[in-house]
Amino acid sequence: MQAPSQRTQVKRGRKRADYDPQLVKQIIDQSLLCHVAQIHDGYPVVTPTCHWRDGDMLYWHGHTRARNLYASQGQSVCVNISQLDDLVMARSAFHHSVNYRSVTLFGVPQLIEDESEKRRQLELFVERLSPGRWQQLRPINEQEMLLTAVIAMPIHEASVKVRAAPPSDDDEDYGWPVWAGVMPIQRQWGDLQQDPKQTEDKRYPLPSSPVNGAI
Amino acid sequence: MQAPSQRTQVKRGRKRADYDPQLVKQIIDQSLLCHVAQIHDGYPVVTPTCHWRDGDMLYWHGHTRARNLYASQGQSVCVNISQLDDLVMARSAFHHSVNYRSVTLFGVPQLIEDESEKRRQLELFVERLSPGRWQQLRPINEQEMLLTAVIAMPIHEASVKVRAAPPSDDDEDYGWPVWAGVMPIQRQWGDLQQDPKQTEDKRYPLPSSPVNGAI
Ligand SMILES: Cc1cc2nc3c(=O)[nH]c(=O)nc-3n(C[C@H](O)[C@H](O)[C@H](O)COP(=O)(O)OP(=O)(O)OC[C@H]3O[C@@H](n4cnc5c(N)ncnc54)[C@H](O)[C@@H]3O)c2cc1C
Ligand SMILES: Cc1cc2nc3c(=O)[nH]c(=O)nc-3n(C[C@H](O)[C@H](O)[C@H](O)COP(=O)(O)OP(=O)(O)OC[C@H]3O[C@@H](n4cnc5c(N)ncnc54)[C@H](O)[C@@H]3O)c2cc1C
Ligand code: HEM
Ligand code: HEM
Repeated sequence: MQAPSQRTQVKRGRKRADYDPQLVKQIIDQSLLCHVAQIHDGYPVVTPTCHWRDGDMLYWHGHTRARNLYASQGQSVCVNISQLDDLVMARSAFHHSVNYRSVTLFGVPQLIEDESEKRRQLELFVERLSPGRWQQLRPINEQEMLLTAVIAMPIHEASVKVRAAPPSDDDEDYGWPVWAGVMPIQRQWGDLQQDPKQTEDKRYPLPSSPVNGAI
Repeated sequence: MQAPSQRTQVKRGRKRADYDPQLVKQIIDQSLLCHVAQIHDGYPVVTPTCHWRDGDMLYWHGHTRARNLYASQGQSVCVNISQLDDLVMARSAFHHSVNYRSVTLFGVPQLIEDESEKRRQLELFVERLSPGRWQQLRPINEQEMLLTAVIAMPIHEASVKVRAAPPSDDDEDYGWPVWAGVMPIQRQWGDLQQDPKQTEDKRYPLPSSPVNGAI
């Protein structure tokens, strides 16, 4: 499949590369964290932040004066969304690796200025993390809206790399006498921990966990 | 505590900021993945890669022609190491957050040119991921050494942000009738999966998992 642009053309590890928009979205949806890189005062900065997707747009939020909001607007950014799935234990040192799912996106984000669209996106964000929660919450007030920025970039100039396999050793090493295989990382939602300050003698409905298997 | 430089001075969320070198190293050691941001052809790029620490230096490796190796040498980079620990479910929409541990480093990495130091560092890398494994492996050969680059940057210009608490709601919202607390992400090493191609009728010692609780 063709890369959407020259800079998204994967050179290293081409057999692990993909550009399928559905796969791009799936990997975006399965993760809760992204890393946004931008140029600030001539030097590179990378900021971890939570993201969400709506159609073909990637969103994140924060303070109106956070650098990856106000200072990335209209600027070229690069975003990576990655999950490390297993350690890959080969027979040779050289062929050790990890299994992973990774999306790299290039683009120019734009702040959401329309107030009702901003509110709608913040609702989508909360709802993707815990369906049903938004309408239970103390709603956003005007002061909070003024402090909050929401930004979006197109999910278009994107590349995927995935490794999901046992070790790939050199032919002559397959008899080497060492255990070979993968060591998986298991992720799951642990037991909910209620706020100790929540002392009311009431049982509230428990929150759901994120959709799409995101963790 | 004083930030080591102006650009590492945390402005947003100062009470979560720290600059203690021991805490910086602890967070670096507890994670297997970092994100390296650099400027390439005038635009920002961010590359996920596995890292390791030796003393006050942060290391990563890859192909001699990988961008975050050859093209970051002598250039300004920014590296972030993050772990998302819990979803923080507040009573208000505005105060939703996540618990996390995060280190951001600035610096100029340099390639390791000395062959024996390069080998030593690759051994440290494998040993931090699986103690005792290095000496069991088919050793690196000359061709592999030529293809591999190892790079290092000082762990000096670093900032930490940590959030590890229940939700912080506004005083007037503490009676709001919704479940509040945290939803933890649990990470653990799953059952080892042996390479299906390893059909020898021998039982090899099983590999250890990473040191320092890294996952
Ligand atoms: C897992 C995770 C999820 C997050 N999700 C969100 C989110 O959804 N929305 C949001 O607004 N923020 C989120 N953050 C916080 C985010 O990384 C930034 O701290 C925040 O966006 C402010 O960025 P800034 O560059 O404006 O901060 P500033 O305080 O202006 O940055 C100045 C300096 O502070 C230091 N610094 C800033 N952020 C970090 C950090 N994370 N770790 C270590 N040092 C740092 C750096 O040295 C930086 O150069 C998340 C952080 C983590 C670890
Ligand atoms: C969890 C994890 C751990 C990794 N650990 C290591 C490691 O220890 N050592 C190592 O060498 N590599 C590691 N990688 C792979 C690494 O991210 C790069 O793919 C590799 O370093 C080559 O980078 P490059 O910029 O030279 O690639 P190039 O192929 O030259 O990059 C060209 C284009 O390919 C695309 N691309 C490159 N990398 C990725 C990616 N990861 N995801 C999506 N698109 C991508 C981008 O669009 C990029 O602009 C890891 C990846 C993941 C997800
Ligand atoms: C447990 C230890 C190791 C881990 C977890 C690891 C992980 C990785 C990963 C994830 C990649 C990227 C593969 C991709 O692009 O899909 C990579 C690339 C590479 N690694 Fe390692 N590695 C390890 C040890 C080593 C050692 C010991 C060497 C050298 C002796 C080495 C040499 C290389 C080289 C040359 C590449 C680039 C491959 C290419 O782009 O053609 N690795 N490594
Ligand atoms: C479940 C949903 C949410 C999550 C997971 C989340 C997560 C976060 C995180 C991790 C931060 C960074 C805090 C830090 O620097 O330590 C942050 C900052 C911020 N969030 Fe959210 N948030 C959510 C919902 C919202 C909503 C709905 C709003 C607005 C109505 C909002 C407004 C803000 C603002 C203004 C900041 C900046 C705080 C500051 O720097 O002073 N967030 N959020």
